[in-house]
Amino acid sequence: MSLDPEIVLYTYFRSSAAYRVRIALNLKGIKSESIYVHLLKDGGQQHSEDYLKHNPQGLVPTLRHNEYDIGQSLAILEYLEEVFPEPSLLPGDVYGRARARQLAYVVACDIHPLNNLRMLQRLRDEYGLDEAARQDWQQHWIKLGFIALEKMLVGSKHTGKFCHGDTPTIADICLIPQMFNARRVELDLTPYPTLRRIDEAANTLPAFADAAPMVQPDAG
Amino acid sequence: MSLDPEIVLYTYFRSSAAYRVRIALNLKGIKSESIYVHLLKDGGQQHSEDYLKHNPQGLVPTLRHNEYDIGQSLAILEYLEEVFPEPSLLPGDVYGRARARQLAYVVACDIHPLNNLRMLQRLRDEYGLDEAARQDWQQHWIKLGFIALEKMLVGSKHTGKFCHGDTPTIADICLIPQMFNARRVELDLTPYPTLRRIDEAANTLPAFADAAPMVQPDAG
Repeated sequence: MSLDPEIVLYTYFRSSAAYRVRIALNLKGIKSESIYVHLLKDGGQQHSEDYLKHNPQGLVPTLRHNEYDIGQSLAILEYLEEVFPEPSLLPGDVYGRARARQLAYVVACDIHPLNNLRMLQRLRDEYGLDEAARQDWQQHWIKLGFIALEKMLVGSKHTGKFCHGDTPTIADICLIPQMFNARRVELDLTPYPTLRRIDEAANTLPAFADAAPMVQPDAG
Repeated sequence: MSLDPEIVLYTYFRSSAAYRVRIALNLKGIKSESIYVHLLKDGGQQHSEDYLKHNPQGLVPTLRHNEYDIGQSLAILEYLEEVFPEPSLLPGDVYGRARARQLAYVVACDIHPLNNLRMLQRLRDEYGLDEAARQDWQQHWIKLGFIALEKMLVGSKHTGKFCHGDTPTIADICLIPQMFNARRVELDLTPYPTLRRIDEAANTLPAFADAAPMVQPDAG
């Protein structure tokens, strides 16, 4: 692992978006310092005045590098790819890159935002949805996205051991945290054999396994 | 305008995501053929068997180029940037690109997915939210995002005539359709003078004006 003490990741163990960045840093062998932002303690440490200076949205993660703060996990992934190009998290050809990004955005734009903490808190506080109803809400959006992803993966000759070919790309980096979330809300994963196969393959790699929520120092 | 008859855009006038791609095509001077997918007619033409072959998610837009179908507007923007690099929709330096992408993803991941058609349909059909409640829901998420965007833009010396510098980037390409949506749900835009200023500047450019929903051939 290269040592780059200038990289700081503001992270929370259970955040899908932070989980993505942890995987990317591991895959690229980039050593970083972690600052833990607890999304529930103290009314949500992401709302603290100090954290908002780094991330005006009050969301994790933030990557700090050379005194620049970068928010939004996908912007961070593209940044890491540009600054630390090897190993690449994007396929070598332009159509492959489009495909990997499309798969990644299915998760990042059409599944995850509908299931994150602030959304669930609003469904509870404003609309009185109980835990079962919130779980049903989460399952619904993950299911819609997973049905499409499974079709897209089964239907393409480019699908390999991973979502695109035989090495991990941003598509896997987004998928694997979403699989973790799907299990948390007890979604039946039987209809998605390809997603399960890729998830299993990814989790045998230390880069993925070491990024998992429950092995983070702030888990608990 | 260069003529590239191989490019087909599956589009719907009111779709924010399609609106983004229309702007990008215009900015780059790429001529394309439009195929109109009406999101409400026939129970939603995006769910038709024929369209699902191009886009397994059943969402617009899809860009078809050289017989490849690319879904997810942000994947399309990155693809267009790679294949038609001039004029660039990304800043010239790595931190600038990270910033422009971060601003774009604030809209694309944290505002728009919470307000799109399928989300609103579910709030109505499953949870019985009436029109006023749905409008309140939409305003809430746009407001949260706009407060952050306004801060991020005011707080940076890189903000120029547009979100990043004096030429349009993917940040503006995502922002301007979101401003259109904000007006549709009657959000009070007074607290966002920078967003309004950039919106005004962008809409003086034919690339933006010609991409607007109400001037599309399928508007109505």
